[in-house]
Amino acid sequence: MNPFTREIIVRFEHCDTAGIMFYPRFFALVNETVEDWFASLGFDFKTLHIDQRKGLPTVRLESEFVAPVRMGDRLKQSLGVEALGNASLELKHLAVVGDRAVARFDQTLVFTDLAGMKAEPWPTELRAAIAKFAEIA
Amino acid sequence: MNPFTREIIVRFEHCDTAGIMFYPRFFALVNETVEDWFASLGFDFKTLHIDQRKGLPTVRLESEFVAPVRMGDRLKQSLGVEALGNASLELKHLAVVGDRAVARFDQTLVFTDLAGMKAEPWPTELRAAIAKFAEIA
Amino acid sequence: MNPFTREIIVRFEHCDTAGIMFYPRFFALVNETVEDWFASLGFDFKTLHIDQRKGLPTVRLESEFVAPVRMGDRLKQSLGVEALGNASLELKHLAVVGDRAVARFDQTLVFTDLAGMKAEPWPTELRAAIAKFAEIA
Amino acid sequence: MNPFTREIIVRFEHCDTAGIMFYPRFFALVNETVEDWFASLGFDFKTLHIDQRKGLPTVRLESEFVAPVRMGDRLKQSLGVEALGNASLELKHLAVVGDRAVARFDQTLVFTDLAGMKAEPWPTELRAAIAKFAEIA
Repeated sequence: MNPFTREIIVRFEHCDTAGIMFYPRFFALVNETVEDWFASLGFDFKTLHIDQRKGLPTVRLESEFVAPVRMGDRLKQSLGVEALGNASLELKHLAVVGDRAVARFDQTLVFTDLAGMKAEPWPTELRAAIAKFAEIA
Repeated sequence: MNPFTREIIVRFEHCDTAGIMFYPRFFALVNETVEDWFASLGFDFKTLHIDQRKGLPTVRLESEFVAPVRMGDRLKQSLGVEALGNASLELKHLAVVGDRAVARFDQTLVFTDLAGMKAEPWPTELRAAIAKFAEIA
Repeated sequence: MNPFTREIIVRFEHCDTAGIMFYPRFFALVNETVEDWFASLGFDFKTLHIDQRKGLPTVRLESEFVAPVRMGDRLKQSLGVEALGNASLELKHLAVVGDRAVARFDQTLVFTDLAGMKAEPWPTELRAAIAKFAEIA
Repeated sequence: MNPFTREIIVRFEHCDTAGIMFYPRFFALVNETVEDWFASLGFDFKTLHIDQRKGLPTVRLESEFVAPVRMGDRLKQSLGVEALGNASLELKHLAVVGDRAVARFDQTLVFTDLAGMKAEPWPTELRAAIAKFAEIA
């Protein structure tokens, strides 16, 4: 499996008064990566959330921040699939600046019907797209 | 040890298109709780960050989101000290709506000099205030 | 007409790398004031947006930032009604630190049905509550 | 003068519970456009704010929101220089989805020394870069 990757420049708005990334902003970037990855699989968040009224609430998120991230840094985010359950998905995120890891995230999402806020199995096509990305036989 | 507690009403801006709290906003509320707790100990973030150029970067944050939080919910956040190290601090956060836990966070912070972004030992008075709160002998 | 007022302490998360309020965060505080005012009138945003599927999009917002606002400042926000139209509402906001005005906002909102994103007349009871607040005969 | 332009996809995090852009997030996008434009002129925000301790506080911002912006919309933002003063800068922003204007912003910034929070004249090279962009003789 090759991870999904994207690169951003750390912006003014991501940084706190010390000029380093404020950690709640980092979680917004984690969410953006998932959003971009889903779009790359052919499942954009607008269709999913607005048209189909499905969601992907995070139920677990373990985070390690191993080095400060500064305004202007070129941040490379990558994401891989750790496990694909009936309704759940476990992702491993890595964030790197230059050749140095700056943060790691282990995230568990659950496919959810927004009307009743109930977990439900991944739709067949979305599941197939995730499995293909993850090279799960 | 009695935990530090505060209560907020979940706002429009905290919620996503499903009307439930968007998890990056939850981390901002975790940070607000730490900010309010420090202020209650007599150490406000303005003095700490701006005047003294010290910071409290988070190096580890484990999160569990066990039930959705909705706009208008009365969210009770509480925080207790798990461990006080030489330069580090481990906090346990609980967030409750009504009598139901909605989220838990285990957070490790490190007292840091912002000029060099180096960890340094807690200042004596701040350490004493935290230890008194935590009822550490 | 007495304005609606509220007071907050300017937080870490509101401030940019210069330690002063980042202006997009100020607009979030303007929105919070409107949210708190509506709640004080008996019309909370959760009922309005989620249960009734109505919204209050801003169509015009003129802003003046006359003095910097710093972390830790006690910010007093006030809001008064300038005009109440068939579907629109014009508000004047003032933000003060100590005895000094720091910002002013003129905001026009429109009562809107979210399903069709069409303006519609204020519901009778909500209109009456706004008119009473504004002491409009 | 050709305006500076950029294009983004409206994200999940920009949108409120109605699935339309929450206006405080729009101001963050206005700020991003200014940040990207400055970078395109050779003056990145990190160098300006962190290394040189200069800032660009907004003192006036007039906004018109003429049509709702929805998740997934391709938003084209453009920015032109209206006036370049001794220490000030007046920008006109236009935001378009498809062939339809969705928002307009008139913004006045002031070049500021962050240590004393005092306006000061534009540095010669930065002023020249802005004037060249604006085709001011």
